[in-house]
Amino acid sequence: MIAITDRKINEYMMRLSFEGDPLLLEMEKIGRENDFPIVDRLVGRLLYLLTRLKDPRLIVELGSGYGYSAFWFAKALGRGRVVLTEYEEANIAYAKEAFRKAGLSKKAEFRVGDAVKTAAGYGKIDILFIDMDKHQYLPAIKKLLPNLNRNALVIADNTLWYGRVTEKLRDRDTLGIKKFNEYMFKNPAFFSTIVPLRDGVLIAYKVG
Amino acid sequence: MIAITDRKINEYMMRLSFEGDPLLLEMEKIGRENDFPIVDRLVGRLLYLLTRLKDPRLIVELGSGYGYSAFWFAKALGRGRVVLTEYEEANIAYAKEAFRKAGLSKKAEFRVGDAVKTAAGYGKIDILFIDMDKHQYLPAIKKLLPNLNRNALVIADNTLWYGRVTEKLRDRDTLGIKKFNEYMFKNPAFFSTIVPLRDGVLIAYKVG
Repeated sequence: MIAITDRKINEYMMRLSFEGDPLLLEMEKIGRENDFPIVDRLVGRLLYLLTRLKDPRLIVELGSGYGYSAFWFAKALGRGRVVLTEYEEANIAYAKEAFRKAGLSKKAEFRVGDAVKTAAGYGKIDILFIDMDKHQYLPAIKKLLPNLNRNALVIADNTLWYGRVTEKLRDRDTLGIKKFNEYMFKNPAFFSTIVPLRDGVLIAYKVG
Repeated sequence: MIAITDRKINEYMMRLSFEGDPLLLEMEKIGRENDFPIVDRLVGRLLYLLTRLKDPRLIVELGSGYGYSAFWFAKALGRGRVVLTEYEEANIAYAKEAFRKAGLSKKAEFRVGDAVKTAAGYGKIDILFIDMDKHQYLPAIKKLLPNLNRNALVIADNTLWYGRVTEKLRDRDTLGIKKFNEYMFKNPAFFSTIVPLRDGVLIAYKVG
């Protein structure tokens, strides 16, 4: 396990990235205190910027936790909405309450259950955000390809998997991430890049 | 001077990023052989993706070198065009020839001379790309703010300045980059983020 980005650089970028939203700050605190893996503020800001740029009608998340990334998406949305999917009812309940407090409830749908099965019920997805079990990334994108809109964005978290992608590990999560990355970079349906923020964010633009 | 992103991670991302365009490969080779600082393939791919997403009519570069970043922009453009600005006539001559060979000449304007003065002659800039002398970043963006279109993107290279932004250095380039970053993150006209690819790419979305 290696530091993907130099620690001082991360601190510098965090100092620049002032945050005044009390709900985001609370979610970041809960993440730290419970060691719950959220995308963090720097990735959250990247999601916000990409959403402003894309102006999507429909964002679907595969694996929403208690709603930190979805909160960034919702704040950036114009007319669109974000669908949260999550197994844990308690997490979704927390997200619902945070969105209600922020006046963002109308921009979100909260779905408890299997992420991919839920997502498969939506068509013309403009942004698909993948942050579920790592060995499920590749089957998920293959299954949901027909559900993506023209010029959709696929954004996947943990695609550098704490540096394990550079090691000769054979566990199913490391292999899953490596196979997913190779698929996304080789598939001519996508133009892909990985941004080495936190644990690596793959961003893929659907060509056509 | 520190490695912003772990070397193995960079190598992993480069292995994924196959490139078959002989002109890009030639420009990368020239960069290595002459130690000429080009944005590199990973940043080039990010520029390509952002351009596809934004679909801009007008991109203006401040500091084009021999055209590597402009080449990525041009490949991604739909109906728009990219303006290259550069002091060195020999660099612009090289860029012109590369664009001609690639059939991209109609998507580009080649301007020799002062970058900011040239850029000031254009209005409704959709993407402003800054890669000139580092102490000039801040005066350049202040000067060109009225020339930016609604929801423009400002993309600036070298904004982590080989890690010097984290050190207590007082040279004008380090100070220039630090002041530029602070301005871009604090100015409510922009929503900014830095992507720690190569030497740090600041991406700012103009709000309104």
